[in-house]
Amino acid sequence: MNLAISQREYKERVEHVRESLAKRKLDALYLTNGTSMFYLTGYSFISTERPAALVIPLEGEITFLGPLLEKEHVPLETTLIQRVKTYVDYPGEKHPIEHFAQFLTEMELAKKRIGTDSKAGALSLWGYKGPPLTRKLKGAKFVDASALIWSMRLVKSPTEIALIRESTKWANLAVSLLQEYTQEGLWDVDVALAATNETSAVMKKTLGPDYTPKRSIYPVSAGFRGQIGEMSAIPHSMATKHVIKKGDVVIAEAGVDIGGYSCELERTMIVGKPTEKQKKYFGVMVRAQEAAFNAIKHGAKCSDIDTASINVFKKAGLMSLVRHHTGHGLGLEGHEPPWLDVGNKEPLRAGTVVSCEPGIYEFGHAGFRHSDTVLVTDKGMELLTYYSRSIDDLTI
Amino acid sequence: MNLAISQREYKERVEHVRESLAKRKLDALYLTNGTSMFYLTGYSFISTERPAALVIPLEGEITFLGPLLEKEHVPLETTLIQRVKTYVDYPGEKHPIEHFAQFLTEMELAKKRIGTDSKAGALSLWGYKGPPLTRKLKGAKFVDASALIWSMRLVKSPTEIALIRESTKWANLAVSLLQEYTQEGLWDVDVALAATNETSAVMKKTLGPDYTPKRSIYPVSAGFRGQIGEMSAIPHSMATKHVIKKGDVVIAEAGVDIGGYSCELERTMIVGKPTEKQKKYFGVMVRAQEAAFNAIKHGAKCSDIDTASINVFKKAGLMSLVRHHTGHGLGLEGHEPPWLDVGNKEPLRAGTVVSCEPGIYEFGHAGFRHSDTVLVTDKGMELLTYYSRSIDDLTI
Repeated sequence: MNLAISQREYKERVEHVRESLAKRKLDALYLTNGTSMFYLTGYSFISTERPAALVIPLEGEITFLGPLLEKEHVPLETTLIQRVKTYVDYPGEKHPIEHFAQFLTEMELAKKRIGTDSKAGALSLWGYKGPPLTRKLKGAKFVDASALIWSMRLVKSPTEIALIRESTKWANLAVSLLQEYTQEGLWDVDVALAATNETSAVMKKTLGPDYTPKRSIYPVSAGFRGQIGEMSAIPHSMATKHVIKKGDVVIAEAGVDIGGYSCELERTMIVGKPTEKQKKYFGVMVRAQEAAFNAIKHGAKCSDIDTASINVFKKAGLMSLVRHHTGHGLGLEGHEPPWLDVGNKEPLRAGTVVSCEPGIYEFGHAGFRHSDTVLVTDKGMELLTYYSRSIDDLTI
Repeated sequence: MNLAISQREYKERVEHVRESLAKRKLDALYLTNGTSMFYLTGYSFISTERPAALVIPLEGEITFLGPLLEKEHVPLETTLIQRVKTYVDYPGEKHPIEHFAQFLTEMELAKKRIGTDSKAGALSLWGYKGPPLTRKLKGAKFVDASALIWSMRLVKSPTEIALIRESTKWANLAVSLLQEYTQEGLWDVDVALAATNETSAVMKKTLGPDYTPKRSIYPVSAGFRGQIGEMSAIPHSMATKHVIKKGDVVIAEAGVDIGGYSCELERTMIVGKPTEKQKKYFGVMVRAQEAAFNAIKHGAKCSDIDTASINVFKKAGLMSLVRHHTGHGLGLEGHEPPWLDVGNKEPLRAGTVVSCEPGIYEFGHAGFRHSDTVLVTDKGMELLTYYSRSIDDLTI
């Protein structure tokens, strides 16, 4: 079963990069962002304090610069990277950035115009320190090109959409299991890990031995992230000490790595008979999400989607409970452009995939948010996630 | 049971920051790194494209600047942060960095000297774009102060050491279960999730209802990270398609969040009777680790520890199989300073906690690496992890 971007599509992406470089009169692209590197080559690795970069020259070999421990890893993951140049380790007797300056010189780029996403030449992770690459390669002209990859990622290809669509199936299974396993007296972490474990095992049996997550350690990320009872009112809560109680609002979430891509699926559930207030908040949240769905189409401004849900909250007199905008692009990162935010006047484009997740949060009580993965189309949108959004189905 | 840093210790850390600011004639510290913020306050949050910063003025209220969705979260996690100033969302009708410039002005810092870990004023995550804070607050003088928190984190307090020590117990359970559950024909991901799930559930029952991970979604991170059979030769492999086979070398790993801190425990295991070559490589690796252990003490240069293990590999004629240095500091990040690397001449200090994990990797065959968590002491070192390192015990 085909569960990844083909080497041919990666090649097309690199060709597109080279066309953009030529247009901007740049001689190479130097990238430090691991997700961008994966997007262009299919090679995924753990970003650490050890500097790493992908260099795409206008002409010449696509080259990975990085630590020795990635040397044999690169060709196992991609055929796009033609050359790997390594230093032993960080900080080393000679600093990695000095090596990189030398590698770029060997590639005859020392006096050229180089587009980059980092003039430092390295991510600043886990206590990394080093001189900026620009200082070690003074003859080169570095130009900010961070927008290039983002502009490519904004509209998804048919294969990318297919991978995200496949991801929604398994997220649906994971959320089904989270709902099935949720009961009074359990720790949400136990429920989460049981659902994660089972979904992962069933995926492998269903998709066959070729399945493996491409950018994660585990196939499935499913759970409540601490959004249990009162803590569901904290949109980015991280953990909770509490066990699930009768009357709790809980927010279940799942993402699943298919070829490095994931959907986003979140559901508000109520443990026991909902109170009148819970019914009201739940209903307003669902209407706000529907208003946003109805506003999504090719050409609509991103801000219009946010405004559509805000108008529902305002009309219900609940605007004071809003804590974030309506959604964001997705695919390779937890969040990515475009932002469904009142401040973003960019038009939506057919083929863009976004989350739609307006929410309301009453501190001391509960939070209410569904998140669905939505494909923007010419005439409107297609819901890629399909788990029920109704309070009757989501009452445990 | 006390499983976290006390508010008093966080206060002392902030006091130390203020003393350092005074010495450097700085009026405030502006931090964007989430781990640094946790280190100083106990407040942990999910870093995203939404800018966030902790401001510690020399005098005046400790203030968190961030998105509205963190507003009610902050006081649930810490009493150290006295004020929370928020913008609605990113990018917003007014950019968050414009808000931050205004907030700093309200705090009377607009014309002051500010130490910072980021002149941009925000992390560059998930497609974030924005003007540098320095450009929006031209009257202020921003000074690189990123080394300040790292210098504080280098030597652990008695409580930090106690938390890491507690973490080693549960990592030991997790690795025991990984070993117990490993068998031919299983997918390493299934084994990993089963061990994670069980360790997590037992921890909660043992440590009591107050236990919760502080900086992770789940208490335990345990598994093989794809280091199965031939893929064990890739130190940073991420996943594998293969099931466990007879004759495979596998590398099991575990970390456990206790109060936001974690140890590191990794063990090389062999499924079935080891071959002569596997015995040889395993033995050399163990001797290299012991040589490194023996070199660790207060005052020894970090490079000396790396040299000690390198000498064993060289003597065995296996230096060509080395892919990384001997170890790194740990506690709050996956890796942190100091680096046990030939290029790092810093002296080790009593109270520093490091991983000790020299390894050898033969492409197409297998990798061999144990990792232990080691406390540097005045006269030598104390092994905090205690899982057996012998090939007899690690043969499955």
